[in-house]
Amino acid sequence: MRPQAELHRRARTDTKVDSDTKVDSAVRVRMVGESAAVPLPGKWVRPVVRSVSPQIDGGRRATKATVGELVSVSADAFVDGHDPLWCELRHRHESAATWTVTPMTQSYDDRWSAVLPVEKLGLYRFWVRATVDRFAGWRDDLAARAEAGQEIGIHLEAGALLLEDLMTRLRSSDRRLLARLADALRGAPRGLEADAPPELAAEWATEEEGPGPGPTRLGDLVFSPRLGALLGPLAAPAAAANAGPFALISEPAGARFSAWYEMFPRSAGSTGAHGTFADVRRRLDYVQQMGFDVLYLPPIHPIGHTARKGRNAGTRAEPDDVGSPWAIGAAGGGHTAVHPELGSLEEFRELVQDAAGRGIDVAIDLAFQASPDHPWVREHPSWFRRAPDGTIRYAENPPKRYEDIYPFDFESPDWPDLWRALLDVVRFWVAQGIRIFRVDNPHTKPFAFWEWLLASVRSETPTAIFLSEAFTRPRVMEHLARIGFTQSYTYFAWRTSKWELESYLESLTHSETSNYLRPNLWPNTPDILTGELQRGGRGAFLSRLVLAATLAASYGIYGPAFELQEHLPRQEGSEEYLRSEKYEIRSWDIDSPTSLAPFIALVNRIRQEHVALQFNDSLRFHGTDNDALVAYSKVRDTATGRDVVLTVVNLDHAHVQSGWIHLDLEALGLVSDEPFLAHDLLSEARYAWRGSANFVKLDPADVPCHIFSLTQREPVPGARPEVAS
Amino acid sequence: MRPQAELHRRARTDTKVDSDTKVDSAVRVRMVGESAAVPLPGKWVRPVVRSVSPQIDGGRRATKATVGELVSVSADAFVDGHDPLWCELRHRHESAATWTVTPMTQSYDDRWSAVLPVEKLGLYRFWVRATVDRFAGWRDDLAARAEAGQEIGIHLEAGALLLEDLMTRLRSSDRRLLARLADALRGAPRGLEADAPPELAAEWATEEEGPGPGPTRLGDLVFSPRLGALLGPLAAPAAAANAGPFALISEPAGARFSAWYEMFPRSAGSTGAHGTFADVRRRLDYVQQMGFDVLYLPPIHPIGHTARKGRNAGTRAEPDDVGSPWAIGAAGGGHTAVHPELGSLEEFRELVQDAAGRGIDVAIDLAFQASPDHPWVREHPSWFRRAPDGTIRYAENPPKRYEDIYPFDFESPDWPDLWRALLDVVRFWVAQGIRIFRVDNPHTKPFAFWEWLLASVRSETPTAIFLSEAFTRPRVMEHLARIGFTQSYTYFAWRTSKWELESYLESLTHSETSNYLRPNLWPNTPDILTGELQRGGRGAFLSRLVLAATLAASYGIYGPAFELQEHLPRQEGSEEYLRSEKYEIRSWDIDSPTSLAPFIALVNRIRQEHVALQFNDSLRFHGTDNDALVAYSKVRDTATGRDVVLTVVNLDHAHVQSGWIHLDLEALGLVSDEPFLAHDLLSEARYAWRGSANFVKLDPADVPCHIFSLTQREPVPGARPEVAS
Repeated sequence: MRPQAELHRRARTDTKVDSDTKVDSAVRVRMVGESAAVPLPGKWVRPVVRSVSPQIDGGRRATKATVGELVSVSADAFVDGHDPLWCELRHRHESAATWTVTPMTQSYDDRWSAVLPVEKLGLYRFWVRATVDRFAGWRDDLAARAEAGQEIGIHLEAGALLLEDLMTRLRSSDRRLLARLADALRGAPRGLEADAPPELAAEWATEEEGPGPGPTRLGDLVFSPRLGALLGPLAAPAAAANAGPFALISEPAGARFSAWYEMFPRSAGSTGAHGTFADVRRRLDYVQQMGFDVLYLPPIHPIGHTARKGRNAGTRAEPDDVGSPWAIGAAGGGHTAVHPELGSLEEFRELVQDAAGRGIDVAIDLAFQASPDHPWVREHPSWFRRAPDGTIRYAENPPKRYEDIYPFDFESPDWPDLWRALLDVVRFWVAQGIRIFRVDNPHTKPFAFWEWLLASVRSETPTAIFLSEAFTRPRVMEHLARIGFTQSYTYFAWRTSKWELESYLESLTHSETSNYLRPNLWPNTPDILTGELQRGGRGAFLSRLVLAATLAASYGIYGPAFELQEHLPRQEGSEEYLRSEKYEIRSWDIDSPTSLAPFIALVNRIRQEHVALQFNDSLRFHGTDNDALVAYSKVRDTATGRDVVLTVVNLDHAHVQSGWIHLDLEALGLVSDEPFLAHDLLSEARYAWRGSANFVKLDPADVPCHIFSLTQREPVPGARPEVAS
Repeated sequence: MRPQAELHRRARTDTKVDSDTKVDSAVRVRMVGESAAVPLPGKWVRPVVRSVSPQIDGGRRATKATVGELVSVSADAFVDGHDPLWCELRHRHESAATWTVTPMTQSYDDRWSAVLPVEKLGLYRFWVRATVDRFAGWRDDLAARAEAGQEIGIHLEAGALLLEDLMTRLRSSDRRLLARLADALRGAPRGLEADAPPELAAEWATEEEGPGPGPTRLGDLVFSPRLGALLGPLAAPAAAANAGPFALISEPAGARFSAWYEMFPRSAGSTGAHGTFADVRRRLDYVQQMGFDVLYLPPIHPIGHTARKGRNAGTRAEPDDVGSPWAIGAAGGGHTAVHPELGSLEEFRELVQDAAGRGIDVAIDLAFQASPDHPWVREHPSWFRRAPDGTIRYAENPPKRYEDIYPFDFESPDWPDLWRALLDVVRFWVAQGIRIFRVDNPHTKPFAFWEWLLASVRSETPTAIFLSEAFTRPRVMEHLARIGFTQSYTYFAWRTSKWELESYLESLTHSETSNYLRPNLWPNTPDILTGELQRGGRGAFLSRLVLAATLAASYGIYGPAFELQEHLPRQEGSEEYLRSEKYEIRSWDIDSPTSLAPFIALVNRIRQEHVALQFNDSLRFHGTDNDALVAYSKVRDTATGRDVVLTVVNLDHAHVQSGWIHLDLEALGLVSDEPFLAHDLLSEARYAWRGSANFVKLDPADVPCHIFSLTQREPVPGARPEVAS
């Protein structure tokens, strides 16, 4: 009847079938155009697993987490037809010998998820496995038939056969019990109403109910969750769809939650003389009282003399000019030496240890470039680029020239030696007790270099933290985070309007980027004195601090310029500081009565006491009817309850602004009909609020911010009604 | 000075470096925990190419296009530092021997794009390549230096050296010219103002200006786009970042733009007797006049007798009941036979040829299942599943039973034979002139089967089109499209409110899904008589038709039930038709004066005449101040101008609705200050509109839709002012 079809079939019987061919081989073979004949798949499975989240570059790079986090892993999993699936997450820390298996649960559509608990530092791998859950399929059918009053005898027999097939994959004790269950299904004249053998009831009855005193029905056993969990995953490995492995890197908590304080050690002296490591030690009390946990020092190495920059970046240095610390290297040494005027390496180690005793990590700067006086210029001339006239090429971004800086040539024929030498620089400082590095302009060195260097350091020092200072285009910033930088500077300094703050922080915290880029928000740096801080007065400093400290779990300031509200630019239109510390020694009156240090200390204490502020994923903006007011919340559930923090900031530094904020109460976990307490952690004022709309009024001449702790169903003692401020 | 570092370096010198290691090997090695020592990358490149669009499953599956389309391919490409990149798209049709290279241009951020013109049926492969554009980098620096008035002599020398390096990758004639240019750069006392050697000017002067009569400056040559295009791509292959290959499948235009008409051949008779292929031929005029280009027939094979369903899906068939055409197979044959009462295979071929002569493709149904009387039940018992009692298992979805249907066992030990036999079924019908297949319930057969079958058919018949009838969960629908189905039925029938239509069509046309899933919108099918059509009257039929025909480039109706407004359900709450043609022969009065056939013909003519309606990617919804009104546009530029079609539909079938629509004039390409003509192609009314807000009023008792053609800067003869309807 089908001679033509028969002919085709015969002809194709000889087709070689490659037993390693994947499901998609048909398409692949066709794509490369090797042959118009599409071979049958050598092996294939019915389920499909795809779109596993989180993942970076298909598992080639690692998603980020910190110790103690519960990472939700999800995936699309589905199969043809109506069969139920069994899905599981398998994960393994690099130090573990075996995979931990966690059943996944189905949420909406065909999305499955499970929690990966991050317990140790280092690398985890994970993958998702889906198989047809034959037992659940049989059981669901049985339930539907029984409910419809259909005869189920033959279906019970099919169940017995299924159990006898599945049990071959179980250990012998379970096997014996399953054989008994199969017998019971076959010999059950009353069907599911029959008594269950007590031995089986004791094993599989639900935990809540227990086997109880009386007999258990056979049906109770068949539908027992424990039996389902035992039999659900039993499928031949060849019938499983797998996606992965994917990678997750677990870092210390400080990778996620940190408050950075940057200061120039040479300005730490009290008299205007060149500051020393000892001066910095004397300032540790001050830094500790403000509540910072990272003290970041610009480069501490010998500073070059050739083409040294003068004050205010002048091209000619006077004899007493101290030069830029980023012009690294002089007769005294290079990246592994300390500037003699700061003190000795021993004194630096003492500073690091003293700080560590106070819970402060000293971070140093990794600026991989050399002054013309760096010893490597002599020792390794091949590590630098040359102009046609044979001279070493200084840094330039035409028409700008940086004659005091020689960049390294990462593509030099001698690159392996250069790269290893730079890795050794990091190792050297790790040996001095440093584990946090602020990396200067990483986007001007090859990505491959960083990916190798960061992996190398982490393989020896899993606690290492690297902050990427790449004020560059978004895709480049993101890629540096993707290849291993722990934290990243951001565009925060230039995001000032409500719309800018909302859209930018949304993209940082709720896009796929948030799986690998951890923002560190800085209102100022030695290179960035924004127009807002130049002209906004005290209110601008207060609001930018609160924004940085509450929008992101990591933030930092460059002090004492920040707390002393240093605001004069080198010239109109410039973001450079006048009398920048990059080129001269400054003496700071840290005891000034107008210093913001006490306010900063309060904000940092609030961050410590409110776990909601220590993560970014719950950040949510709430509506305000005044564009000068931005309002956002963070929420975190803890063992002792839910922590809800609502921040409201007046973005107008010149005028009092007031308006209604419209809270998404459901997102905050608040019952809409009941009053709740809004406790302003900055002013200690307490307000009894109710419902979504609440009124606020913020004065830049006072404190232009609220940081509210919101609680419900608690006594509201002495709270004023309804209106804040 | 760095003894510890030296030690490290020595120790690491012995580390084996694998020359095949990829850039990401450091991470990978670390991930698998093989060693804490991270080797240097064996090879690495500076640029990065990622996020190429369109792509499906990383290139393992093909994105879809039709012949004549210009597909925009885009990618993120970037490099460390400030060097400019050269990016190019390389594509190749499977029949071509070489790659076509197209330079890409940079748009926002680091996004690059180029057009891939789809010229032939079949598979294309493409990839994206990025290299550092050393010449552009040198040239940009030169421009910056020159503008700043800096001395450029040494930079010209550097340029000469660069040219001498690059020229080694060029053919000898270009090489000679470049050597001359290098000489000119070196010997140019007046710098860029020097005269250019005429020989070079003739080659590289810009096309617009030409070498002109007078001498050309050397600077003109250096900045010539033609020189830039010659030198930009010259990088060592080892220095290139590549992403791909990705795949694109090119299908006939009908894969994208099609109007389907479904009818039961056995109801094509005029007297109520069993219709025949000859009757269908007689109805081709009717189908052609309505403007359909695909005539889809439910299964035409012999129908089983065992457990045949009666009228209205009754479980007991009367002797004269004709049974469901989806119960395929009887003594007369199976999937490659025709039902004797419809006529002979020869008569079927005549029907197909007659239709083809009128521009109509006959599509048949691929329902891969068997009635108990199918010859394969006897010939290939192993292709079916068995119950514990040895009987073949009929289809069921407990508690529902389909005793007249035996599903195939695609996992049978004998699966290769079954799969090949099913492929041979398709081949058989292709040999009869069929190239369009409506596939019944593909989601109940393994994905791997379809991926293989579709690739196999396409390898022999690149014009083949498969419509996936999978009314199932979204991820499964999407996956069937991803593995090769040409078009897909959708949830359109159940999306009735403005919000539902907008969000659903947005997701179909503007998500990543649109790269592979081509929606085919059906207001009704033999299985789906929606509540809206049951109760909405004529207005509902008109508006659902217009929505289907203008929201998507492909749509279909099941007729004559649709045009005759058949609206009675089998019972309250059911979407089954009363007296469904699935179980009995119907006789239709296609000449009824209330038939919608003339309206349908008008809508199909509008679709033919307006290319904007033949694509989905420009679909854009516009605001309306009345939720009963939905408004959307499609725009397409052609050689003769821009085609702009705006559709407005009243979704309320009981009441006149009116309101203002708020057009995004910029998206429509209309100048906001000038009037434009809104020509309603349904009523031939013409309105002079101006500005964004325009008023419409639509009556379900009349025609509850506008399909406007919008044009500007043309005479507006006899147009009424401002208000439509």
